[in-house]
Amino acid sequence: MLKKRTSHYKKKLGLSPGSIVYTGDKETQGLFIESFDYNSEFVDKKVHANIEDVFHFKNTKSVSWININGLNHVDAIEKIGNHYNLHPLTLEDIVNTSHRPKIDDYTNYVFIVLKMIYYDKDEQVVTEQVSFILGDNYVISFQEAEGDVFDTVRNRISLAKGRIRTLGSDYLLYALIDAVTDHYFIVIETMGNKIEDLEDNLFTGYSQEEISVQIQNLKREILKVRRAIFPLREIISRIEKNENNFIQDKTIHYYRDIYDHVIQISENIEIYREMIWGLMDMYMTTISNKMNEVMKVLTVISTIFIPLTFMAGIYGMNFDYIPELHFRYSYFILWAIMIALFFSMLYYFKKKKWF
Amino acid sequence: MLKKRTSHYKKKLGLSPGSIVYTGDKETQGLFIESFDYNSEFVDKKVHANIEDVFHFKNTKSVSWININGLNHVDAIEKIGNHYNLHPLTLEDIVNTSHRPKIDDYTNYVFIVLKMIYYDKDEQVVTEQVSFILGDNYVISFQEAEGDVFDTVRNRISLAKGRIRTLGSDYLLYALIDAVTDHYFIVIETMGNKIEDLEDNLFTGYSQEEISVQIQNLKREILKVRRAIFPLREIISRIEKNENNFIQDKTIHYYRDIYDHVIQISENIEIYREMIWGLMDMYMTTISNKMNEVMKVLTVISTIFIPLTFMAGIYGMNFDYIPELHFRYSYFILWAIMIALFFSMLYYFKKKKWF
Amino acid sequence: MLKKRTSHYKKKLGLSPGSIVYTGDKETQGLFIESFDYNSEFVDKKVHANIEDVFHFKNTKSVSWININGLNHVDAIEKIGNHYNLHPLTLEDIVNTSHRPKIDDYTNYVFIVLKMIYYDKDEQVVTEQVSFILGDNYVISFQEAEGDVFDTVRNRISLAKGRIRTLGSDYLLYALIDAVTDHYFIVIETMGNKIEDLEDNLFTGYSQEEISVQIQNLKREILKVRRAIFPLREIISRIEKNENNFIQDKTIHYYRDIYDHVIQISENIEIYREMIWGLMDMYMTTISNKMNEVMKVLTVISTIFIPLTFMAGIYGMNFDYIPELHFRYSYFILWAIMIALFFSMLYYFKKKKWF
Amino acid sequence: MLKKRTSHYKKKLGLSPGSIVYTGDKETQGLFIESFDYNSEFVDKKVHANIEDVFHFKNTKSVSWININGLNHVDAIEKIGNHYNLHPLTLEDIVNTSHRPKIDDYTNYVFIVLKMIYYDKDEQVVTEQVSFILGDNYVISFQEAEGDVFDTVRNRISLAKGRIRTLGSDYLLYALIDAVTDHYFIVIETMGNKIEDLEDNLFTGYSQEEISVQIQNLKREILKVRRAIFPLREIISRIEKNENNFIQDKTIHYYRDIYDHVIQISENIEIYREMIWGLMDMYMTTISNKMNEVMKVLTVISTIFIPLTFMAGIYGMNFDYIPELHFRYSYFILWAIMIALFFSMLYYFKKKKWF
Amino acid sequence: MLKKRTSHYKKKLGLSPGSIVYTGDKETQGLFIESFDYNSEFVDKKVHANIEDVFHFKNTKSVSWININGLNHVDAIEKIGNHYNLHPLTLEDIVNTSHRPKIDDYTNYVFIVLKMIYYDKDEQVVTEQVSFILGDNYVISFQEAEGDVFDTVRNRISLAKGRIRTLGSDYLLYALIDAVTDHYFIVIETMGNKIEDLEDNLFTGYSQEEISVQIQNLKREILKVRRAIFPLREIISRIEKNENNFIQDKTIHYYRDIYDHVIQISENIEIYREMIWGLMDMYMTTISNKMNEVMKVLTVISTIFIPLTFMAGIYGMNFDYIPELHFRYSYFILWAIMIALFFSMLYYFKKKKWF
Repeated sequence: MLKKRTSHYKKKLGLSPGSIVYTGDKETQGLFIESFDYNSEFVDKKVHANIEDVFHFKNTKSVSWININGLNHVDAIEKIGNHYNLHPLTLEDIVNTSHRPKIDDYTNYVFIVLKMIYYDKDEQVVTEQVSFILGDNYVISFQEAEGDVFDTVRNRISLAKGRIRTLGSDYLLYALIDAVTDHYFIVIETMGNKIEDLEDNLFTGYSQEEISVQIQNLKREILKVRRAIFPLREIISRIEKNENNFIQDKTIHYYRDIYDHVIQISENIEIYREMIWGLMDMYMTTISNKMNEVMKVLTVISTIFIPLTFMAGIYGMNFDYIPELHFRYSYFILWAIMIALFFSMLYYFKKKKWF
Repeated sequence: MLKKRTSHYKKKLGLSPGSIVYTGDKETQGLFIESFDYNSEFVDKKVHANIEDVFHFKNTKSVSWININGLNHVDAIEKIGNHYNLHPLTLEDIVNTSHRPKIDDYTNYVFIVLKMIYYDKDEQVVTEQVSFILGDNYVISFQEAEGDVFDTVRNRISLAKGRIRTLGSDYLLYALIDAVTDHYFIVIETMGNKIEDLEDNLFTGYSQEEISVQIQNLKREILKVRRAIFPLREIISRIEKNENNFIQDKTIHYYRDIYDHVIQISENIEIYREMIWGLMDMYMTTISNKMNEVMKVLTVISTIFIPLTFMAGIYGMNFDYIPELHFRYSYFILWAIMIALFFSMLYYFKKKKWF
Repeated sequence: MLKKRTSHYKKKLGLSPGSIVYTGDKETQGLFIESFDYNSEFVDKKVHANIEDVFHFKNTKSVSWININGLNHVDAIEKIGNHYNLHPLTLEDIVNTSHRPKIDDYTNYVFIVLKMIYYDKDEQVVTEQVSFILGDNYVISFQEAEGDVFDTVRNRISLAKGRIRTLGSDYLLYALIDAVTDHYFIVIETMGNKIEDLEDNLFTGYSQEEISVQIQNLKREILKVRRAIFPLREIISRIEKNENNFIQDKTIHYYRDIYDHVIQISENIEIYREMIWGLMDMYMTTISNKMNEVMKVLTVISTIFIPLTFMAGIYGMNFDYIPELHFRYSYFILWAIMIALFFSMLYYFKKKKWF
Repeated sequence: MLKKRTSHYKKKLGLSPGSIVYTGDKETQGLFIESFDYNSEFVDKKVHANIEDVFHFKNTKSVSWININGLNHVDAIEKIGNHYNLHPLTLEDIVNTSHRPKIDDYTNYVFIVLKMIYYDKDEQVVTEQVSFILGDNYVISFQEAEGDVFDTVRNRISLAKGRIRTLGSDYLLYALIDAVTDHYFIVIETMGNKIEDLEDNLFTGYSQEEISVQIQNLKREILKVRRAIFPLREIISRIEKNENNFIQDKTIHYYRDIYDHVIQISENIEIYREMIWGLMDMYMTTISNKMNEVMKVLTVISTIFIPLTFMAGIYGMNFDYIPELHFRYSYFILWAIMIALFFSMLYYFKKKKWF
Repeated sequence: MLKKRTSHYKKKLGLSPGSIVYTGDKETQGLFIESFDYNSEFVDKKVHANIEDVFHFKNTKSVSWININGLNHVDAIEKIGNHYNLHPLTLEDIVNTSHRPKIDDYTNYVFIVLKMIYYDKDEQVVTEQVSFILGDNYVISFQEAEGDVFDTVRNRISLAKGRIRTLGSDYLLYALIDAVTDHYFIVIETMGNKIEDLEDNLFTGYSQEEISVQIQNLKREILKVRRAIFPLREIISRIEKNENNFIQDKTIHYYRDIYDHVIQISENIEIYREMIWGLMDMYMTTISNKMNEVMKVLTVISTIFIPLTFMAGIYGMNFDYIPELHFRYSYFILWAIMIALFFSMLYYFKKKKWF
């Protein structure tokens, strides 16, 4: 991720502001254009080959949703941007995939950048940029690559499920954002499972190196997800404040619902952070405890046998005159002393709770 | 808890917003409907079999309290929701037990979600969702399962104790919330006792593993309780601001009282957090101290006997010509030297305060 | 303290809000009622046997101070509360000694709860509740037990020292709060001395266990004091804002002065917190250093003598053919080698700064 | 850096406020004056020898950019300051290179101080001061030394690329600030690479001393960069608020864009901080783990061989009567016992997962 | 410092508010009264013996600066206070040297308390109180002891350097505060040098005890300086807000300049804090590393020689029948085995990077 962003900076450095340069790594993605035009009476769903085919939705009275996948096709994005009077900076931000989530109010539209988050096959957290243009009676959505995140919205429009067909473009935008944020719960859940798994294996399952690496990875995933999700709180609360007139009063409650979800996710992330720190502490304590245990074994053995060995050493000396050597029972007396010493030391360590 | 929430996400993913799906784990709970209709003159308490039996309270002039247990009965909740004109998102939130505490103002009612907290038989913190609808002259409360939390309110209504019968639905709501928050003190108290107990046994009673696990458990309980209680501050202060007109001025002081309690509980939680961190530190220090002590024993014994053993080793050598071996008193002289060394080392360690 | 609060919760659980239950532990305290009625011309000081004797001060034009000790006498407090039109919640809070400091504005009076803090004979921090009712021309103060905290105010009123006799009940309240907060400085000072003492004895005087326990105790005292003092900032600044009309403009500067004191005390507490953390760190470092030193002694001794003992062991072997054994000067040569080894090792450790 | 600032304080102490003293260390820098005068029709680019040559731009209707390198030439800066009616404090701040980034609104101009940040040849973070005067139709920029940071702006003006020639001095200022902040991304990127590199070599590549020094260096670089970048958030948001009238409404969106960049950079810095703390923790854990491993080896070897050596010592004693010495197979029996002990100890340690 | 404050509390406890008691420790300081009366035309500088000599400046049209050293002379301060209509609380705060920096607005004057900070001969941070009364056309300054901090202001007034003689008392106050805050930079610089010095000697120069004590001292100095400087931010920003009318609009920019300085100093202090924590961490790591190194030496030596000594012990036994003893080359074979073991162990430790 750092590398990707890097190349982006290099690419863009020295270009004039508003230059439209795709900064992601999906350079070979095909262009996919899809449109839904609907009101409570009818729905018209089409896939288009040319960007010009979706120009006429600007003027229809019905609600239109234009979904464009493939941010590497900057020409198409520039064309649609010009037709729908999007500000150059908006176009720049649509294709700049390293942008943080944000909302921009323009007189003729609202521009929102979000992050899709999911775990890829390698169990890595991946973020992908999704942006939305909310106009009077249309929503344009831009994705880096095709995905199934909007399938539920497609179904609801096609099958006229729920309220979606009876409400305006502001509700459509809500449904799309809701589809994106719903996926955050999955990520949060996977993360929670990872933490639980780590917790269960803290004392036994994993090696110390593994644990330390996994904790560091989890910390980093949390940083990444936090960065993608936290700006949402401000974005949604600015939508709620309804400074522009693109959101109708009766839709506000739905955005409030997303806001609640985002707060809940943020809280979970913070709780995970604390839990990981707790794990870290427990892990450090475990290491200390183990070292303590090792030390005790060493000390018990050394403390018992070093004096005994000294005694044996004494009577291994070759002095001509060592009277004890010649007493008949010295050997057994020495054994008796040694055994007494051995047990009294054991008793001492037992009393000190060393084992 | 993580697992429960997980399954919820899975259940709900892909459903249109406002879908009413029970997300708790009390799937077999029976439906229990109870109503209190009262004013200063009379009180009418009933238990109902059908949800339709409580529809007429919408229009009575007297204050009505409808208490519904069993969130798994989504049909009944949907019916009463429709009759009382509740927003679909409200209904969704009533049965979504993973929701965080919140308040939502609608034109015809106020919707409040709280968490009951208690310790179950296994000494685990359990949270249960309670939600309230405050309308003009009625309060509807929804609980996951039957419980005795509202018994004091039932008594006060039945026996006309205190002010409750002379005041409106806003005071009834206060009494119900007060009953819920009163239980928080019990949890806080149990937590405090746990911490005290841990403190008393930090140095002696428990094994190191136990202590480390208990500290981690306490941290987690605190996280859980905090998450349930902290949003209350905002909720109550929003009630106090009285943006809607459901709360009368003379009841405000009572909500202010709950606010004070919530602040006090929050403060206690923060203090417990600090105390647990303090315990953690003390515990780490204890481990370090113990290791230090162990090291000292090892070092004293080794440092005294290793040189002595070396001396004994010298005179155990078999060289043909070691003059000392043949002196008459060498053995005793060596003993004298060894004993002198022994005591001077003891003195040295004593001076260094090693024991 | 935890235990006391506990019993309080148990006592009150299930009672209707506004129930007046004494929650402290001074159950056998006698009731003491004292009154000061004064203006710039006269002063009338009395001690009363019955609570009814102080009812008439409600209507006097002169400034009246009614001081009541013994919160366990709930009947008397209820009577005076009813006569002076105090809200039931106010009465509840007066006798609920576990309450946090707060201010409540009512239309006919201002209610303030403070905490007295002092060190008892056992050098423990004790908090005691003091509450004040500020009416038009009277102040009523409630204390758990008799104390000398208000003696300076008594003197100033009796002897007409300073401005007190020429100003109204708002200045009287100021003088009483000032008397309470003045005692905080004493507590802060004692705490500072304790920290200094601990600092002086960190390296030598106390045992490690003692230090660790004292640090934990100090942390807890700070938590306790902080909890009693921090809410005061908000209370005083709310008095200053003068939302009610009980405080005259010319008295505001005096409350501002208390505010400055409270800020200063709060800052001191924060500084003490940081100092204690610093001590904790120093202490941990000290332990590590000591362990390091112990390790070095062990290593030096072991590293020097273990190889030498090995050499002695070699020539203690009983092989038939060990040529060195029979050379005339082998013994002395071996000694020479051993001594050389000994000193070169000493030199090596010296160079490594191990001692 | 500390030393440089030091000399500055010494230099200035005792001077009256507003004294214009260059405080950087580029004392021998030549003076370089360059001007761009342009509108959508024409562009006039010149390099000047005397500061007086740029005085007339104050009154031209076209947009003028005066770029001055060499803050050590205080005379020239004072002259231009007087001609353009700059406040003495502004002049003081232009040449005081230790100033933190800031914005000052005057009635006739806006004064902005920024920091250029880059890595020098020695891989050290260097900050250099750049300040801007935004007047009605001119921008004056001051740099410590010549650099290529503004080359892209020069090109865009010369070649009429983008919008720059069609917009006013407020857009010019935006383009210049944008050029400065664009370089921050490079620094952030280098920093990110350093952290990644450190992470990759944490367990193997570097020595412990190196790692500890590198972590400390990274922390310090982050402190330095943070100090240069964080004030920018406030600066840009104050520009956006447009309290003065130097910024036109249609340029605001561009400043908003810089604001987003600065937020993004700030977030990255915070993430790097957390990552470095994580590295620190991992590193400490690694040390602990290694020590643990070392201890285990020592303990295994000692615990196995010390008792065995004791046994050998026993039968090395010279007592006259040790019956075992004379049994035919004692030696082999002892070996058998020793080998049994050896393997049972190995088994014990294996079971304890010590190796 | 704690002790001094202590005695202050004791001294003041029980006095009525507004009692004027000097609380510093410079009890024998002489009284020094000096006045400057000036406008753009003339300057009149005098030293006075009696406080009454400066009473007439209250009514002059020219700007007057009265500087009073020696806060122990409470009589003189009370007299001037009464003449200039200062509030009793103001007089109390002037002589109460333990007061934190603050600003108080009165109708007829502004009262400001600051702290001078410098390093004394023993390299200890010392704070001294300076307070200012800003009236219509006069400034009165109070210092604990004579010092040279205001010399630059004296010179500028005498020599008519800069703007000072042409501007009012608000500019005079600015110049005096500026003189005080300029000294903060010196303290900050000394602190920075101390930290750098400590950093340079962390690994080699100082003993571990010294380092630990120096770090603790630096932390404490920072706490002290922070407490003296941080309130200034609020003070200056309240001056800037110009709620009273004592500050003219054209002087505001100068106060803004002080504000910038204070922010810069505060930032530096925060950075020093972080650096000291970093040093602390490095130092702890160093200790751990050293212990690790010591452990490795011990383990290498023990692990190599303990088994070898065991072998020698085996062949030192006196069993009648040990066949190896009688083989001709056993001794040399044993040596070969020992040497092989020695080098293979060395190789093992080398591979493990233990030395």
